Amino acid sequence: MTAPDPIARLIQALGKLPGIGEKTATRLAFHVLRAGPELAEELASALVDATQRTRFCRRCCTLTDRELCSICADERRDGGILCVVEHVADLRAIERTHEFRGRYHVLHGAIAPLDGVGPDQLKIKDLLTRLGTGEDAEVKEIIVATNPSVDGEATALYLQRLLQPLGLRVTRIASGLPIGGDIEYADSATISRAFAARQRMG
Amino acid sequence: MTAPDPIARLIQALGKLPGIGEKTATRLAFHVLRAGPELAEELASALVDATQRTRFCRRCCTLTDRELCSICADERRDGGILCVVEHVADLRAIERTHEFRGRYHVLHGAIAPLDGVGPDQLKIKDLLTRLGTGEDAEVKEIIVATNPSVDGEATALYLQRLLQPLGLRVTRIASGLPIGGDIEYADSATISRAFAARQRMG
Repeated sequence: MTAPDPIARLIQALGKLPGIGEKTATRLAFHVLRAGPELAEELASALVDATQRTRFCRRCCTLTDRELCSICADERRDGGILCVVEHVADLRAIERTHEFRGRYHVLHGAIAPLDGVGPDQLKIKDLLTRLGTGEDAEVKEIIVATNPSVDGEATALYLQRLLQPLGLRVTRIASGLPIGGDIEYADSATISRAFAARQRMG
Repeated sequence: MTAPDPIARLIQALGKLPGIGEKTATRLAFHVLRAGPELAEELASALVDATQRTRFCRRCCTLTDRELCSICADERRDGGILCVVEHVADLRAIERTHEFRGRYHVLHGAIAPLDGVGPDQLKIKDLLTRLGTGEDAEVKEIIVATNPSVDGEATALYLQRLLQPLGLRVTRIASGLPIGGDIEYADSATISRAFAARQRMG
């Protein structure tokens, strides 16, 4: 038996989401069908609404439903320090710490030559443009908070070479053992990095 | 920062799916936003379409877009044997083996007193009704293929007591070690069952 058409189509559509295989898609589809039309309609309208109303913030390129995102529009944020991240989700993770009070720039990816992603596919030109305008003239430090992965490190290096000549202080977030982590279970690359980046105490 | 409204709403809606926590919902939402409107619209229309067009098969209670599902409508299926399952997904898993040629009955759950699910919340009355009508008069055996869980076993026992007095042969699918499984890693309950249900060889 093949599933009746509308169910098969729903399973197929759900299977296009990242990390959702056919089994999970099937489970989700039947859950939606069991739950009744309200859940399906809520999901459907949220999907369409979000894609229709969301755009890039004119200044930092994060996703927002306004011309200027709430962080860029917030005058209390420190305009002297800019944190560059790969994705909006990274920005959100950093915001959850409530520690960083500067503004952001979202690249929407990292340089990955093997995947055909070069600087031009990222919001790097937008970063240069905003640094050259009056709005962000007070920026003095750029914290490069791309992932500590091959692509993220390559992107960090690229940005450093691009931005340091402009007279900006370019810093990189620290890598090492995660807080609460266990040396016994840490991977070798993390341990090596933790040793190489060791700091004098006191 | 809180996410801009339409994104937050999408994350919340996706988080209502089973097994999707806030982190996964966030990841899915940003994937959809990155992928652009086509994916969102495809998902949205599949969701609404599936819930609107899907109903219970008049005979076996599976989900279908017709009055009679493709299995019940298939005259080549063996009308003498009926397999009772908890969910449509179970039916689909059994169909994938291409071994069973009878028909099905989908209960849409199992008896779970602690969750407030009694026989009346399941399609048990529908099962009795169809067995009493001409269409399924030739049924001689009922294979109870509910899960080998506490709820599934309770449901199996309930069905056995209900159906045996009607002169039907009621059977239960076998439990034991999964094929390709490893005794070393099997749980005690499965090993106990495999021993208790041991069969003479040859």
